[in-house]
Amino acid sequence: MALWLCCAWIFILLLPGPSDGGKLLVVPMVGSHWLSMQQVVEKLSEKGHEVVVLMPEVSWQMKVAQAYTVKTYPVTQTLEELDAAFLKYVATHLQDRPFPLNVLAQYNISVEVFSTFFVQCKDLFSSKETLQYLNQSGFDAILTDPVFLCGAILANYFSLPYVFFMRGFPCNLHYEAPQSPSPLSYIPRLFTFNSDHMTFFQRVENALVSLLELEYCNGFYADAIKLSSEVLQRDVSLLDLLNSASVWLLRYDFVFEYVRPVMPNMVFIGGINCAQKKPLPKEFEAIVNASGEHGIVVFSLGSMVSEIPMKKATEIADALGSVPQTVLWRYTGEVPPNLPKNVKLVKWLPQNDLLAHPKARAFITHGGSHGVYEGICNAVPMVLMPLFGDQMDNAKRIESRGAGLMLNVLEMTSEDISTALKAVINDKRYKENIKRLSDLHLDRPIHPLDLAVHWVEFVMRHKGAPHLRPAAHDLNWIQYHSLDVIAFLLAVVLLSLFISLKCCLFCCRRCCCKKGRTRKPTKAKSH
Amino acid sequence: MALWLCCAWIFILLLPGPSDGGKLLVVPMVGSHWLSMQQVVEKLSEKGHEVVVLMPEVSWQMKVAQAYTVKTYPVTQTLEELDAAFLKYVATHLQDRPFPLNVLAQYNISVEVFSTFFVQCKDLFSSKETLQYLNQSGFDAILTDPVFLCGAILANYFSLPYVFFMRGFPCNLHYEAPQSPSPLSYIPRLFTFNSDHMTFFQRVENALVSLLELEYCNGFYADAIKLSSEVLQRDVSLLDLLNSASVWLLRYDFVFEYVRPVMPNMVFIGGINCAQKKPLPKEFEAIVNASGEHGIVVFSLGSMVSEIPMKKATEIADALGSVPQTVLWRYTGEVPPNLPKNVKLVKWLPQNDLLAHPKARAFITHGGSHGVYEGICNAVPMVLMPLFGDQMDNAKRIESRGAGLMLNVLEMTSEDISTALKAVINDKRYKENIKRLSDLHLDRPIHPLDLAVHWVEFVMRHKGAPHLRPAAHDLNWIQYHSLDVIAFLLAVVLLSLFISLKCCLFCCRRCCCKKGRTRKPTKAKSH
Repeated sequence: MALWLCCAWIFILLLPGPSDGGKLLVVPMVGSHWLSMQQVVEKLSEKGHEVVVLMPEVSWQMKVAQAYTVKTYPVTQTLEELDAAFLKYVATHLQDRPFPLNVLAQYNISVEVFSTFFVQCKDLFSSKETLQYLNQSGFDAILTDPVFLCGAILANYFSLPYVFFMRGFPCNLHYEAPQSPSPLSYIPRLFTFNSDHMTFFQRVENALVSLLELEYCNGFYADAIKLSSEVLQRDVSLLDLLNSASVWLLRYDFVFEYVRPVMPNMVFIGGINCAQKKPLPKEFEAIVNASGEHGIVVFSLGSMVSEIPMKKATEIADALGSVPQTVLWRYTGEVPPNLPKNVKLVKWLPQNDLLAHPKARAFITHGGSHGVYEGICNAVPMVLMPLFGDQMDNAKRIESRGAGLMLNVLEMTSEDISTALKAVINDKRYKENIKRLSDLHLDRPIHPLDLAVHWVEFVMRHKGAPHLRPAAHDLNWIQYHSLDVIAFLLAVVLLSLFISLKCCLFCCRRCCCKKGRTRKPTKAKSH
Repeated sequence: MALWLCCAWIFILLLPGPSDGGKLLVVPMVGSHWLSMQQVVEKLSEKGHEVVVLMPEVSWQMKVAQAYTVKTYPVTQTLEELDAAFLKYVATHLQDRPFPLNVLAQYNISVEVFSTFFVQCKDLFSSKETLQYLNQSGFDAILTDPVFLCGAILANYFSLPYVFFMRGFPCNLHYEAPQSPSPLSYIPRLFTFNSDHMTFFQRVENALVSLLELEYCNGFYADAIKLSSEVLQRDVSLLDLLNSASVWLLRYDFVFEYVRPVMPNMVFIGGINCAQKKPLPKEFEAIVNASGEHGIVVFSLGSMVSEIPMKKATEIADALGSVPQTVLWRYTGEVPPNLPKNVKLVKWLPQNDLLAHPKARAFITHGGSHGVYEGICNAVPMVLMPLFGDQMDNAKRIESRGAGLMLNVLEMTSEDISTALKAVINDKRYKENIKRLSDLHLDRPIHPLDLAVHWVEFVMRHKGAPHLRPAAHDLNWIQYHSLDVIAFLLAVVLLSLFISLKCCLFCCRRCCCKKGRTRKPTKAKSH
């Protein structure tokens, strides 16, 4: 009997914990960003919450699982239009142009691609049926990746508490909106590719970039600001849309990111995407086993980019032939004519599971945040070929920690690639450094997936997290920086000085006058 | 067989997790601060670490458990001397003096009591045997409550990584040392008793207090700075001693504390002291059960203060008689002659367990951080009678959240106490507010005790946490605030303006000259 009780107890222990059974609306970002958010959504569903994922009828990689409800809304664009916009975006980043033409071209194409995708958000707000459904559903909270802002506009529209889940905004908005100070002297702005130890001129550059940032983002998000002002029927700024987020789930940690001030409603869940580990599919298991003592190199430019220009592909193929490792390359483009025997082209690869294999020797990656964390979790040194977005900064962070080498995709030669790859495989320091980062990263009191799930549930249970809202939100710019206090104190000091001076002068004059007066009669007497 | 395996598995599950078995030196602060640190120390010992607690031969409340080793060092003071110094300290806070005499008297007595206790640290550094023992012990890290700085000096002396465990320093040092920005506009300085929503003149006061703070602490810690400069054989500032702490375990959370910027190496463990819950001893169980539907009021002015002047005690006794609840009052002084029947005087009480009882209706407390968290954990509304240290600010925080009422110990009358007590018992809003705070506080992904233990183990395993050290430590004041960058950019702007102006003037002059020249000949011709 006692033993049966034992087993019953184990069963109870293994059951998901007690749950309030809340109702959550999820507004994801299409594409690779969904990959880690999906794990949170699945876990929340498992825990008994009713989760509705809002998706455009046309989108990428939005694999649907049975665990949660999917609500789609009609959109006006076709998948081909989205594909074309994204391909043009990538192609622009692969074109070599002199400065500042490259920056301008990249800015323009970013605005263009954002506008293209934002049409889906406009479509959402045009769909009365969808809005009515959402309004009647009685959600407790919204979980959203806010890079395209649609979830944030929706949360403000329905006055629901919301949780952000993201890597970061382009213009420091993920620090500015929650009122987290960002001293320019040691916190490099995104896209400067500086580290936290900057020279004087890098600090000057950092300051100039920060001046440009808000203007840059206002241009970037002009469509979103216009739409939100329309639907919310008031003048809305970017910060207005974002600063009421209850909790920010940020997909990084300080093993990777430079240490900086943060706010109590920021929760760091870097490495959340390493949670799911599965055994390798048979075909991959066979390739890995056949690689012998040299092991394997995993090569992927991310789930969004699987083709590159033939010239680059040929150079890369050439370099890959120079190492004895078997290279698993995720590539769907035309096969390069010089493809060496040790390179296996695949249309898809189980990246995290391959990197987790003890035979993984190096990881060639574009430096997307998911890939970088899979490299860190599994302690595999990296060769980084950043293409766009935050990839350049991610690559810089890994390189600055001695855990990988970064290549310039536009300028790299076959020899550069070969040299970098050989270095990270054969120079023990790269392995040691990534192992150290990995040990630090994995030594945490709670898994990032459980942490993310906890905080979403927290916001659902308590209808937000108002106790984590800093009073700074109630101050204007002058008050926040105490400029009025400084002006007042200066005025008091100056006034005191002025009065003291006047008093002194007055006293002096009195003395002089007295002397004068006492002298005068003397003079008169002497006459 | 399967069932036996089940039970074996349960046994394995219940065993403490795997441990590296590190060696930790603990340098506690004597008195009530030790109460919560002791729980961490016991848990670390349970987990298989070798823990040595360094204690002066003479001290208060340093109950010794078998779980850890205690190493004592000889001191020159007697317990009576320490008691006398502390009694004088409390008495000074209970004397009514006009401003600014009260502030000056409190400052002077604080410096005096600090100097008295700091003699123990000097004794430690005089004990060659103790230093030799510590040097030869091969500790991995030091865990210390740094208010008296002795642990910090020791850590710097032995170049060991160190973890701080505390409520906070008097002069914002616990934010300044780890480089956490503290905007003066919404972060009230300790001892101003302001909330995070300040009027203009409160913000002016806050700015002035912040200007005084460093000077204040340099005076306060003059003895410690002198000793550390001697033992470390270099000029040492207060910040030098503190800024290399690997992790700051801070005994509060943002249910209680005002929301503000923090750093990644700050870990918030408010409520850690609520961890241990035991059934009530029989005598207390009997009193509580006999209290009937009205329930009980728990009254303690902390473990350090158990006597108060008879006049105050009489007033308090009078007020306690005005409520139908049974009052359990921790009090060791002379029994007030008017002690009502519903008041039970006790020399000690199981505070957390009494507050956890469903019959607890109110908590009369001095507002020490341990007590306040026990009130929050158990959702018991409070009447706060702050005496010294951070108690005034703690009380203000609870009052500003509508979870209690604060009384001025020096001015309160019997009627004030009675009114406040009746209000927190009978006005449902106090109970609702403390219940809301309690729900928020207890809804956490991991218990603060486990969090504290994890981070101490982390520092032991990795010999510190250098990846959590902000680059700000490598900048001087001018660089940190980007004053050099601002000066440079201003110079560039001014130089550009000057050159542009000069160019314009030059061009204008050229134009004028040309006109002048072309005119002259005309003039000449016209003549």
